[in-house]
Amino acid sequence: MDDDTTEVVAGNGLLDRRLFLRGGLAGGTVLLTAKAGGVEREDWMKAPGAPMDEIGEPSPHESHVKRTSVRSSPGTTGTGVSFTPHEHLDGIITPSRLHFERHHSGVPDIDPGRHRLIIHGLVERPLSFDLNALGRYPTVSGINFLECSGNSGAALAPNPVQAPLSAVHGLVAGSEWGGVPLSILLDEVGVKAEAKWIIADGADSPMMSRSVPLDKAMDDALVALYQNGERLRPSNGYPMRLFLPGWEGNMSVKWLRTIKVTDQPAMTKDETSKYSDLQKDGSAKLFSFPMGVKSVITSPSHGLTLGPAGIYQISGIAWSGAGKIARVEISVDGGSSWADAALDQHVLSKSLTRFRSAWRWNGAKSIIMSRATDEQGSVQPSREQLLTNRSPGFFYHYNGIQAWQVAENGEVTNVYV
Amino acid sequence: MDDDTTEVVAGNGLLDRRLFLRGGLAGGTVLLTAKAGGVEREDWMKAPGAPMDEIGEPSPHESHVKRTSVRSSPGTTGTGVSFTPHEHLDGIITPSRLHFERHHSGVPDIDPGRHRLIIHGLVERPLSFDLNALGRYPTVSGINFLECSGNSGAALAPNPVQAPLSAVHGLVAGSEWGGVPLSILLDEVGVKAEAKWIIADGADSPMMSRSVPLDKAMDDALVALYQNGERLRPSNGYPMRLFLPGWEGNMSVKWLRTIKVTDQPAMTKDETSKYSDLQKDGSAKLFSFPMGVKSVITSPSHGLTLGPAGIYQISGIAWSGAGKIARVEISVDGGSSWADAALDQHVLSKSLTRFRSAWRWNGAKSIIMSRATDEQGSVQPSREQLLTNRSPGFFYHYNGIQAWQVAENGEVTNVYV
Repeated sequence: MDDDTTEVVAGNGLLDRRLFLRGGLAGGTVLLTAKAGGVEREDWMKAPGAPMDEIGEPSPHESHVKRTSVRSSPGTTGTGVSFTPHEHLDGIITPSRLHFERHHSGVPDIDPGRHRLIIHGLVERPLSFDLNALGRYPTVSGINFLECSGNSGAALAPNPVQAPLSAVHGLVAGSEWGGVPLSILLDEVGVKAEAKWIIADGADSPMMSRSVPLDKAMDDALVALYQNGERLRPSNGYPMRLFLPGWEGNMSVKWLRTIKVTDQPAMTKDETSKYSDLQKDGSAKLFSFPMGVKSVITSPSHGLTLGPAGIYQISGIAWSGAGKIARVEISVDGGSSWADAALDQHVLSKSLTRFRSAWRWNGAKSIIMSRATDEQGSVQPSREQLLTNRSPGFFYHYNGIQAWQVAENGEVTNVYV
Repeated sequence: MDDDTTEVVAGNGLLDRRLFLRGGLAGGTVLLTAKAGGVEREDWMKAPGAPMDEIGEPSPHESHVKRTSVRSSPGTTGTGVSFTPHEHLDGIITPSRLHFERHHSGVPDIDPGRHRLIIHGLVERPLSFDLNALGRYPTVSGINFLECSGNSGAALAPNPVQAPLSAVHGLVAGSEWGGVPLSILLDEVGVKAEAKWIIADGADSPMMSRSVPLDKAMDDALVALYQNGERLRPSNGYPMRLFLPGWEGNMSVKWLRTIKVTDQPAMTKDETSKYSDLQKDGSAKLFSFPMGVKSVITSPSHGLTLGPAGIYQISGIAWSGAGKIARVEISVDGGSSWADAALDQHVLSKSLTRFRSAWRWNGAKSIIMSRATDEQGSVQPSREQLLTNRSPGFFYHYNGIQAWQVAENGEVTNVYV
């Protein structure tokens, strides 16, 4: 490649994002000259391959790509988490089999023929819907992220966690969600004038329950039946879940069973003792629903080792509960200078957005970071800004900037700057 | 529901598509009144559920959702097809495990550490790329359909095939594809001035091979590494395939191994004796690359039986190799009258687009059809128009209108109109 064609736009070798748009960048020094006169055929070209099959599984060579840090609270088997391995993924869609989990008492084994959704409370006509009934209503689909409000809480640890990025930021994923707009079902039951909230319960054994303002329920809420084209999988709410685009994950109640229309929130366990935000004066802020603007570099990240000095792609994901991502900036000199990343073509509202930059790494120790801005003008804060502005005891809604350090030997570690 | 709020826009009860956009439609008559005072808890609510897991599999209740009509030519195990079960799917993304297959001698078991992509021929610097090298180049991602040019060939049968729609139209699927723009790699090797074509070979045992005009290779062609966020699966080309948005499927050569830059097409078996279009004068038209504008109603379709008379959703997919879908029209009276369907929010270029209409079925025998128009103004032809304008022996690039008949008892069958 001809380095003279690349334009440095920020300190320490960050290259112009337009290189991604016009294809004017070459990749580096690891290329090999082809043998003249042809190439030997590998073994797999010398005999017919495997037959077609009813299900197309991943390659056995990719068996390391699975949810990470699967764990449950002491004395339980289903009260815990598993994380999406973004360090191995690309694009804006997360395969359903790798979508993170956060369950409060495991995954119920639901018979879809017996499951019902009940809508009752301050309504004219309380109704019960089975899957067949829901299947006759208008359906819509759209691509959105889903993020647990506890995602990235590990970034609050006093020392940087040295683990793959998914162990810190793996409670977010992107999917196409399809289902019946909740507004249609609420119109069907006839919401009374004094109604202001809905209370959604799951069919898991703890009946995980959250209060949702009626305005959101009537806006873009779905009773989701499909994820990435197929029926929801059990670990994401089969046969149906609430889905609230852009809002903290556990409000999108899985295994949705009842919706009660009320004039006030229910003040359930999971919106009072948990999923609330401790303030500096010791009070707890309830109902902080939308997820803040955020980004993280997925490659390179902890555990992915760079080869020799040369040009590398920096890639990651950005998202905001307030709408579209407007820009993502990259620094490769620890925040001294920044330049815009290129965004992949589909920049969708309340969706993961994929960003990329090209970096000519000179082999010296470097700190790389990303900073997202959404279409409302909100800018992702630094970790320090976040800690300064919140109570020391806060946990949810961490959206600070993630920094990775690249050592001289190419090893990538988690650092605080 | 109040039928008076619904507006009939075409014969036999087709309702206004705006009902999908403003949520003013109710679903029908199969709703049940909720029991007063609460609902009994099902068994699955009485004990903790299953633990989190490294992989989230589909529900066992959905095990019928798999590729259909898996078959191979006589005497072979890997020369055949499997079909995407669109009759069970929704949205615009197809799960990778259900993406159709069309292989010419099975799926090679490729070691990604040994696989190489060689680019040679009319170039300044023939080069060999391993996966690590490709991983350092700029990557992009986008959502596109992939359709075998033989898709829907079964619609040429003298009598309508009575089988699920996937057996006829299941050789199309929608995915997010991510990879390195081929233009960047061609710039890297330095294409000579006299070059006009590339010849792409696969690493399967027959080395499936197609010629691609250089203009397309330099436009939006990818060396795809990712599908729906994860690495390609073996049945879709692991570890890398060519991907040509909007063009007939087998040109997107799976298991991509060599690209030879040339000044003329190679006239390979799969662009001469196959994948060419017989004309009325007996000659064969070569190189009919883009897939035509097309749509099919996926629900209701063959094998899905309607319940009692009432309101139903009609839903399906539309796509065009020429760009975005501009409109989809629906008829529920065998083509006498038509009205526009609603399109889901993401109408993307060279991608599946999901359409919906609401239909008040009166219980009488009815014929339902969809007709797509793309942004270039091309309109999907009727089956009769297609047969009239082509040779009797043609097979590839069938994009005629599909009609389904709904009988008085709700059974749906394949019909020609």
